[in-house]
Amino acid sequence: MKRAAPKASRNSTRTRSRILNESFAEIYRKGFRNSNITEIVGRLQLTKGAFFHHFPTKEDLGYTVVDEILKPLVVDRWIKPLDEYENALDGILQNFKRIIVETPEEHLALGCPLNNLIQEIGSQDPIFREKLGVVLESWIRGIELNLKRAQMRGYVRHGVNMRRLAEFIVMCHEGAFGMVKSGSDRKTFLGLHSCLRDYLEGFRVVSAEKRRVG
Amino acid sequence: MKRAAPKASRNSTRTRSRILNESFAEIYRKGFRNSNITEIVGRLQLTKGAFFHHFPTKEDLGYTVVDEILKPLVVDRWIKPLDEYENALDGILQNFKRIIVETPEEHLALGCPLNNLIQEIGSQDPIFREKLGVVLESWIRGIELNLKRAQMRGYVRHGVNMRRLAEFIVMCHEGAFGMVKSGSDRKTFLGLHSCLRDYLEGFRVVSAEKRRVG
Repeated sequence: MKRAAPKASRNSTRTRSRILNESFAEIYRKGFRNSNITEIVGRLQLTKGAFFHHFPTKEDLGYTVVDEILKPLVVDRWIKPLDEYENALDGILQNFKRIIVETPEEHLALGCPLNNLIQEIGSQDPIFREKLGVVLESWIRGIELNLKRAQMRGYVRHGVNMRRLAEFIVMCHEGAFGMVKSGSDRKTFLGLHSCLRDYLEGFRVVSAEKRRVG
Repeated sequence: MKRAAPKASRNSTRTRSRILNESFAEIYRKGFRNSNITEIVGRLQLTKGAFFHHFPTKEDLGYTVVDEILKPLVVDRWIKPLDEYENALDGILQNFKRIIVETPEEHLALGCPLNNLIQEIGSQDPIFREKLGVVLESWIRGIELNLKRAQMRGYVRHGVNMRRLAEFIVMCHEGAFGMVKSGSDRKTFLGLHSCLRDYLEGFRVVSAEKRRVG
């Protein structure tokens, strides 16, 4: 039988997790540099001591937010939904469209939390740069693997550089979220989506070919 | 005959212009929030009084950098070179490739100065947002007009939504520069370029068609 963790330790884990979630929201709204630890601590009704026990510096906090909040968020949002699709080309396009349509206007204006951090501090802090690179790589790699699976199932043409295509697809996601931050609206966003759709259609195996493969 | 401006006024114009150029470089390296006016003033060997005479607040400085340095830079870099090309599709692809190849590694790592500002402060300061939107719009509009000119000359297919295509092309530029900030290299950059090239090839009028048009 698994023994329950002592109460103090459970509370400590819970506090750490509350700090990370609140900090992610603060960084998403304001950027990393502009985020204010005093305000985060205030909103969580913690002492500064409790905060610094978990995260001695603002950088420690930022790095952990990337590793423990942002990385799983990217995978949950952009890769896991593809499991539902037999053909990743459909999955990528439909998932992207669903997110554009479902994201509230005020969140669209805030952009993509990964892209924001890359642009704000990617070139200035080598540890952030490396950690953000890991998140981006897990996104690209997830897309690539799904495309390869669709190819093995006969839905995607052969002779395509899948790594390069996956990089382009992720770049289109980041670029589209980036454009919207300068005042473009959901209509622009949907236009960018339809260009990506037109491009991806070129990689689809048309059904007669597919029947030959299958 | 045009009279020469008095010396004091010429010096003042020159000081203002030196401040703007140095500030642009500082903002490009460090981001807007992280830029330090004291350091800029120090490097230019100015008094703070001289600085604040021209730009009473850091925001005034930032807005003017966008209007007077960034906007003409984007037009000079991405639109004017297209004048040299009979077919804008060639111009867009070759100019983009030239800039990828010629940009020093340390500047690639800094990303695109327009994209950086959009991501850093686009969603937080409505005046920045508006001004950055104007720069982005002048880029999109310039691409669109060049594509339409190429279409009139018979190089680009009819029935294409040129505004949407121009938005997608600009998004690919911003997205590609954005990706590189998280540690991707020039090879990734060239891979993204070749995906954009493949996509744009689909809009080209093949020569037999072109002969009919011409």
